[in-house]
Amino acid sequence: MNDWDARPRRVGVVGVSGYGGGEILRLLARHPGVEVAYAAGESSAGRRVGEFYPGLSGPIASQTIQSFGTSSLPELDLLFLSLPTGQSRTAAAELPRELKVIDVGGDHRFVDGWTYGLTEVTGATAIAVSSRVADPGCFPSAALLALAPLVCAGLVEATGIVVDAKTGISGAGRGGGSTFGFAEVNEDVAAYSLLKHPHQPEMRQALSRMAGQPASLVFTPHLVPMTRGLLATCYARGSIGTEQALKTARDFYAEAPFVRVTEKPPHSRWPQGTNLAFVSYAADSDAGVVIALGAVDNLGKGAAGQAVQNMNLLLGMPETLGLDLVPMQP
Amino acid sequence: MNDWDARPRRVGVVGVSGYGGGEILRLLARHPGVEVAYAAGESSAGRRVGEFYPGLSGPIASQTIQSFGTSSLPELDLLFLSLPTGQSRTAAAELPRELKVIDVGGDHRFVDGWTYGLTEVTGATAIAVSSRVADPGCFPSAALLALAPLVCAGLVEATGIVVDAKTGISGAGRGGGSTFGFAEVNEDVAAYSLLKHPHQPEMRQALSRMAGQPASLVFTPHLVPMTRGLLATCYARGSIGTEQALKTARDFYAEAPFVRVTEKPPHSRWPQGTNLAFVSYAADSDAGVVIALGAVDNLGKGAAGQAVQNMNLLLGMPETLGLDLVPMQP
Amino acid sequence: MNDWDARPRRVGVVGVSGYGGGEILRLLARHPGVEVAYAAGESSAGRRVGEFYPGLSGPIASQTIQSFGTSSLPELDLLFLSLPTGQSRTAAAELPRELKVIDVGGDHRFVDGWTYGLTEVTGATAIAVSSRVADPGCFPSAALLALAPLVCAGLVEATGIVVDAKTGISGAGRGGGSTFGFAEVNEDVAAYSLLKHPHQPEMRQALSRMAGQPASLVFTPHLVPMTRGLLATCYARGSIGTEQALKTARDFYAEAPFVRVTEKPPHSRWPQGTNLAFVSYAADSDAGVVIALGAVDNLGKGAAGQAVQNMNLLLGMPETLGLDLVPMQP
Amino acid sequence: MNDWDARPRRVGVVGVSGYGGGEILRLLARHPGVEVAYAAGESSAGRRVGEFYPGLSGPIASQTIQSFGTSSLPELDLLFLSLPTGQSRTAAAELPRELKVIDVGGDHRFVDGWTYGLTEVTGATAIAVSSRVADPGCFPSAALLALAPLVCAGLVEATGIVVDAKTGISGAGRGGGSTFGFAEVNEDVAAYSLLKHPHQPEMRQALSRMAGQPASLVFTPHLVPMTRGLLATCYARGSIGTEQALKTARDFYAEAPFVRVTEKPPHSRWPQGTNLAFVSYAADSDAGVVIALGAVDNLGKGAAGQAVQNMNLLLGMPETLGLDLVPMQP
Repeated sequence: MNDWDARPRRVGVVGVSGYGGGEILRLLARHPGVEVAYAAGESSAGRRVGEFYPGLSGPIASQTIQSFGTSSLPELDLLFLSLPTGQSRTAAAELPRELKVIDVGGDHRFVDGWTYGLTEVTGATAIAVSSRVADPGCFPSAALLALAPLVCAGLVEATGIVVDAKTGISGAGRGGGSTFGFAEVNEDVAAYSLLKHPHQPEMRQALSRMAGQPASLVFTPHLVPMTRGLLATCYARGSIGTEQALKTARDFYAEAPFVRVTEKPPHSRWPQGTNLAFVSYAADSDAGVVIALGAVDNLGKGAAGQAVQNMNLLLGMPETLGLDLVPMQP
Repeated sequence: MNDWDARPRRVGVVGVSGYGGGEILRLLARHPGVEVAYAAGESSAGRRVGEFYPGLSGPIASQTIQSFGTSSLPELDLLFLSLPTGQSRTAAAELPRELKVIDVGGDHRFVDGWTYGLTEVTGATAIAVSSRVADPGCFPSAALLALAPLVCAGLVEATGIVVDAKTGISGAGRGGGSTFGFAEVNEDVAAYSLLKHPHQPEMRQALSRMAGQPASLVFTPHLVPMTRGLLATCYARGSIGTEQALKTARDFYAEAPFVRVTEKPPHSRWPQGTNLAFVSYAADSDAGVVIALGAVDNLGKGAAGQAVQNMNLLLGMPETLGLDLVPMQP
Repeated sequence: MNDWDARPRRVGVVGVSGYGGGEILRLLARHPGVEVAYAAGESSAGRRVGEFYPGLSGPIASQTIQSFGTSSLPELDLLFLSLPTGQSRTAAAELPRELKVIDVGGDHRFVDGWTYGLTEVTGATAIAVSSRVADPGCFPSAALLALAPLVCAGLVEATGIVVDAKTGISGAGRGGGSTFGFAEVNEDVAAYSLLKHPHQPEMRQALSRMAGQPASLVFTPHLVPMTRGLLATCYARGSIGTEQALKTARDFYAEAPFVRVTEKPPHSRWPQGTNLAFVSYAADSDAGVVIALGAVDNLGKGAAGQAVQNMNLLLGMPETLGLDLVPMQP
Repeated sequence: MNDWDARPRRVGVVGVSGYGGGEILRLLARHPGVEVAYAAGESSAGRRVGEFYPGLSGPIASQTIQSFGTSSLPELDLLFLSLPTGQSRTAAAELPRELKVIDVGGDHRFVDGWTYGLTEVTGATAIAVSSRVADPGCFPSAALLALAPLVCAGLVEATGIVVDAKTGISGAGRGGGSTFGFAEVNEDVAAYSLLKHPHQPEMRQALSRMAGQPASLVFTPHLVPMTRGLLATCYARGSIGTEQALKTARDFYAEAPFVRVTEKPPHSRWPQGTNLAFVSYAADSDAGVVIALGAVDNLGKGAAGQAVQNMNLLLGMPETLGLDLVPMQP
């Protein structure tokens, strides 16, 4: 018997009314190492989990959704915070130090004492010894996984990078109202938050650490009429060819269970519903330009999958436990 | 010079923040016989029309959207009311009798003094002499156009009819909130309002008139992941064959400029963006069952197109004026 | 140790280029009781499975897709045939009698010696003792699961039933060509195969068996712009109320691990990617009409999920093994 | 009476089975200055136009689609060639010199004697005096309209430009087969033709002319799950601010009837079904980066709309004749 399965760990999820929190529940529902001992949500408080998520069944579905308060927490090994940016900072400060916390939202990505939870870049060991983990934003997860092998190796310049990203609508969260109504976003693609999206400084910080020098980038997110999926198309200056880029990435991710390097440009759908990430490259050494592509499910490796991967590490379980999902095709 | 274009008629539209009201504006923007002298809307009041509808330009786009009040109406020849059901009844009662009114919403379909505005069934002449017209609901427009030729001719029974309809999401209106969010309704089809949708009694009333005896039906609407389009699949008992059904409909609609009888089952997309309706039939005389299919754009013949068609009649203009649109394919 | 996991069973899949065959591979990829020892496909022959399905990894992905021939089969415990209707009859006749066979296609649903594989209706025991199983079509799986409790109990008439069904485009298979191109079927819903779809006699046969008397029905399939999902809206005559219908279904499916009876009309998306089926009911005892709704994933309970469920029974494994998937929401 | 409407011009369309050719027919169907005297198509030859396009009616719908041959052309004023790249070169060479020709396909964009038909850049006058016009590709139409004001004014560098574009699936044409099947491209976004799409040299040629010096760019097209619409997000180096970019574009397009400069990032849907183009800008003068956005309907300003605009000029008619369409919203 493995050490990790001596007893199921007790975990809590805050924000189960949201898409990210709901996806964490979905992944934990069949995770063999944990039990969900606490589920909290604002707009769904008082309802049973199964009423909100007809696809869930068993003990997790019959739980009543709580109204979140730090004073009423049961005993837990780990707590997920999956709240809109700005809503978890106060709560997190009140949580007991010995409780391990993963913030899937955006409040702690620049905060000392929190480990940046992009596992493949930060390192599994660094995650495992943390008690506070700030998971990356969905756009950074795709872009940084694509860029990391080349930036870390110094094969592309860390300045003047362009990240042009396309996300499914679930990235906007459930609370978007009529702005994200079907009739509004169907048959449409549009850029938003030009030059001022908070994921831009998040990526700059991460790229600067990788490069060991100040990085700079322009980031433009686009909404695409699909529910899930995120593709980051990154442009950087460098004089390598396609083969060298691919080989560098294959070496970089040789031990990474969730990142796959492909020769074909990855489709956003390939990792759908899973914690997988696909990266690929095309380079023109004459022109001095390298294109790095990263595809994730914005609710998978871009949010809940990444969170469960880190949970596994924080709780001393195998990194891939409960994440052996196979994406649908089609 | 035709009589009708002696001067442009002045018309007003109430409810331009909604999808139906917006579509009326779109159709009037290039209508040669009228000018929009008044545009009112609740959530968009104070904004310019063009700010809300980037596709509009010219005089209509530079108008300021008013907050609707019966006391502040300018001089008008005709007023469209395109409000959620329940919101136009009070207002309509206060409007001057000499002002012609078309209610696109559901408040006056059972009210004495209002003409039921399904032109092809009620008759162009009956519309033309009215001053109050209650336009049909989107589902009835498709189902009744399909059933009318057979029910009016007594070729199918008027009882025990099944109307199974599928509509695009714009039928739910702009104000649906997260229930109709893209991520909620994409990749999904579902029935709603089982056995209690208000279009069921509306269709029963209309079918009873056609048949000259009490009709009965079951009606089930379904939401389909598309922006526009509505298909009604109607099942009735009768001993005719497919050819007789088609011929009866061709005769019935011989003079109807907007209804096309096709041999192939109509696609909901065929009339997209226009006031067209497509109907077709399949019958099994041995089994005694007739399938009547009707396809409209829920915002076209199912709402704004029908309204403009009736406006043309009420204002003494050619029935098809400004409605000569050709649907996109694809 | 359970008897069933003494050794992994060796299974083969014919038709892995198609959507149904691909979905069987996806489900088997993480099935703990079997190994895929043979994968055959026409258009993908010679390629590696992983090249065709980027989401698969491990041993299954590195297999080479074979060109199917009955003479070159390796030793297998069970073979799935997932071929277009008309293509498996000859092959099936040549297969050794001791090889268990599940035909996911339409060739053996009316053939003596083949058990009709709608597990919840035919019965798990009857499946388990078979060696030839003909799985139901996708439309029948949804409609029959919804109707079975009421028809078997004699609570609705078995004649004059209307089945109006809506399916995602993957139901048309991969080989559809430009007819099912995105630009053709997006923003569109249409009926097809009016009064002549082969699933109509299949349902009549099954309903007649349930009722113990000749049944009759009208069946109209519709294509809806979504990849997966199938909803059958069934209309039958009966004098029961909604509560009695729900209770009858709950009793009927009390021991069925994959069928869930819900009070709300089921959404086609609820079972996406899984072998679940959702059924619900609405009845008007005054009007004498009962609406029975059934929702499945056309590639799940409508094809590959049903096939794996039957495989479990044929190979003496727990019925739910490897099928503990939780649908995405959204 | 205007000179242009003395008599309807006789025009022909080759390639009416394709999406571009079909859209030309749709626009000409209600064009007051021309009649379609010839419609040719390969896969649809021998069928009536109306059978192929149920939305068309009247004389155009009853024409029989011809098999294209230069020897069997009737007398025409102008011929549209809307054929896949590679298929119009031979045919064009055989056409009589006095026949005006617009090639919507890609065969003549680098050929002497052909005028590049991006009207707003080439100039209406230069088009009007031509007899051979090679219309731009769909991606160049959006990207060049966005970049032209800044590149022509020398406000951004003409080298190192990144064009990241997103197109609806109709851009792939009708003949795509199962690669562009709904179930393949729905819920997916992917890049393709990395570093080798033929529109890259086309844009380089056009940008070099604008800049008066050799330009360079990287171009990445992406397929987005929508039927129509194209958005080009262009990144260039320059030290201007957002306001200056907007003002420059407003001045540049002051007389252009089809290009609208907006402060908000344009949505690909805004011009749907019309010949409109929307452009906008965001710049960070500190970082020295300018983002130029261009949105068109790939079948509108990106193909058929642009073609009809040029036809108007070539035939001496008002530039906007027949193109006064208002996009649907939603």
